Amino acid sequence: MANQLIQCVPNFSEGRRSEVIESIIGPFKETKGCNLLDYRADGDHNRLVVTLIGPPGSIQDALIQAAKIAIDHIDLNTHQGGHPRVGAVDIIPFVPLKNITMDECVAISHAFGERYHKETGIPVYFYEAAAKRPDRARLEVIRRGQYELLKTEAAENQDRHPDVGGSGLHATAGATIVGARKFLIAFNVNLDTKDLKVAQTIARLVRSSSGGLCHVKGIGLSLEERGMTQVSMNLVDYEKNSLYRVVEMIRMEANRWGVNIVETEIYGMIPVEAILDSAAYYLQLSDFSAKQVVEMSLLDLVGLEE
Amino acid sequence: MANQLIQCVPNFSEGRRSEVIESIIGPFKETKGCNLLDYRADGDHNRLVVTLIGPPGSIQDALIQAAKIAIDHIDLNTHQGGHPRVGAVDIIPFVPLKNITMDECVAISHAFGERYHKETGIPVYFYEAAAKRPDRARLEVIRRGQYELLKTEAAENQDRHPDVGGSGLHATAGATIVGARKFLIAFNVNLDTKDLKVAQTIARLVRSSSGGLCHVKGIGLSLEERGMTQVSMNLVDYEKNSLYRVVEMIRMEANRWGVNIVETEIYGMIPVEAILDSAAYYLQLSDFSAKQVVEMSLLDLVGLEE
Repeated sequence: MANQLIQCVPNFSEGRRSEVIESIIGPFKETKGCNLLDYRADGDHNRLVVTLIGPPGSIQDALIQAAKIAIDHIDLNTHQGGHPRVGAVDIIPFVPLKNITMDECVAISHAFGERYHKETGIPVYFYEAAAKRPDRARLEVIRRGQYELLKTEAAENQDRHPDVGGSGLHATAGATIVGARKFLIAFNVNLDTKDLKVAQTIARLVRSSSGGLCHVKGIGLSLEERGMTQVSMNLVDYEKNSLYRVVEMIRMEANRWGVNIVETEIYGMIPVEAILDSAAYYLQLSDFSAKQVVEMSLLDLVGLEE
Repeated sequence: MANQLIQCVPNFSEGRRSEVIESIIGPFKETKGCNLLDYRADGDHNRLVVTLIGPPGSIQDALIQAAKIAIDHIDLNTHQGGHPRVGAVDIIPFVPLKNITMDECVAISHAFGERYHKETGIPVYFYEAAAKRPDRARLEVIRRGQYELLKTEAAENQDRHPDVGGSGLHATAGATIVGARKFLIAFNVNLDTKDLKVAQTIARLVRSSSGGLCHVKGIGLSLEERGMTQVSMNLVDYEKNSLYRVVEMIRMEANRWGVNIVETEIYGMIPVEAILDSAAYYLQLSDFSAKQVVEMSLLDLVGLEE
C-alpha cells in the first residue's frame, strides 16, 4: 500500500466562467498530497479538464470538496457546450500509475462512488474497468442522450438507473460517471474547413465504434470561434494506437476533400513513451529507448519513494 | 556548490574487444556518486562512448581510474576505426546539467586537465568553452591529421603543442582532449547506398564548416559490415538545429541520388526537450509543453535534492 500513486482526471462542466473554474480547482491546490499537474478550460466544449497525481486518499478527499463547489455553481439545465456530458461533475476516472494495480483502482472507484453519493447527493454510474454491468464499460452507453435525455430515463427506465443512488438524477448537477481505466490521451486534430460533415466523417473513419482503429474514440465538432472543425478524440490505449498513426490516417482521409490539418492538440497530460514512440517513427530512429532520455534516467536515479 | 550535477561523455578508442570495454567501464560502475547511464561500443567506429551523470568530484575520480585502464590496453599506433581520434582516451567533455554554470565546468576542465596529466602522463588539449587559444575551441582544429599526424606535429610544431604536458604525445595513448560544452547529441543517419561520396557530400551540405546548419558537425562514413553509408553528426546546439530539420534536410538532399534514409540513431543520451521538439513538429502539436508529460511532472515533484 505504501507510495501508491494514481492519476485522476476529473472533468467538470464549466469552461467559460473563470471565477467558477478557480473555485473548483481550489481544493486540488490546497489538499496535502494532491498534486495539481494541469487544468484546462475550453470555451467551445464548456468543460474543465483537471489532471491530478498523488496517493489515492488525498485525491479522493480533494475530489469531494471540489465537487461540492461545482454543484453550487453549475446547473445542467442551462449548461451548453460542444462536449457530451451528464453532470456538473461529469466524470472521475482513476488511473493506476505506480505501485497500484487496475483491480485496486476498481476497488477505489466503488468505495469512492458510495462516499461521493453520500456526501453530495449525486447519483453515480460506474464505467470502464469499474463497470458493474458489461454494457456500462462503454462511456457512450452511459452518456447516450446526454443530461437532457438521461434526466428522464434515469427516473423512468430501470435499464438506465444509476449504479449508486436509486433512480433519477440530481436536479441541477445530474449524475457523475466514476471508474478506473488505462491512461487516456485526449487528442484533437483541427482541420482547415468549416464543413462539420468532413470532421464527422473522418471521426467515424478513425474511431473503433464504426470500424476504425480499435482504441480510438472520436467525434467531429465545430470550432465556430476559430472557423475550423475538429476531430476530437480519446486514445484509450496509446501503446496499440500510436499518435502518429492517428494523425497520418486523418491526414490521408482529409486529402480526399483537399482539407489540411492546421494543428493538433494534446489536451492535458501524456506519458513520455507516447511521445517517444511518435518521434521515433518520424525520425526513423532504430534501437531507441527511453533510457537514453536524460530526464528519464534522472527519474530512475531519484526514484519516487516519497 | 551543493547538489551540482554534470554530465560527462568520455570517448575511448576501443569499440571491438568486449573484455577491454568492460574493464574500462568498471570504475564508472564502482565509484560512489558516479552514475553510468549508458555505454555504447561501435565496431565500425572502433570507439566506446560512455555517458555519466553525477557530482563533478565523483566523476573526475572515476575518469582517472578508467583512463589508467584504457592506457594499458589501447595502442594508437595499431588502432584503426572510422571515427577521427588522437588518443586512447580521446575526449572528455564536461557538460553543465543542474546547479552548475558553464564557467564552473570550464574551471573543472582546467583543474582536471592538470591532474589527469600528472596521474597518467598523457598530454591534454583544451577545447570548446575550455579552450585556452581561440582556434582550439574547434575540435576539428585539435584533431587535424588525427593521431598519425599529431604525434609528429605535437613534438615538432610549437603551434600544435599540447596545453598541458609540454611537447609531444604519449607513446601509445596519444593525447586527450578535455573541455566544457553544451549538451551534444550524437546523431547518425544511415543511407541505402554503398557510395561513400553520397554520404560525404550530404555531410558537407548539412554541416556548419562548409556552410550548412550552424550547429551541426558531420562526416560521411562507410558502414562496410552493413553495406550502407552514414552521415555521422554531432548536434552541438539542439535548440537551434532541431533533429527533425537535420533529418528532413538530409532526406531532401539524398533524393537527388534516389537514395533513402534507412534508419537513424541517437548515440548515447538526449534531453527530453529535443525529442518533444521533433514530435511536436511532425504531429503539428500547438501549444505543447514538457509540463504535459507525466514523467516530467513527477520529476518536478520529487526534485533532485540528493
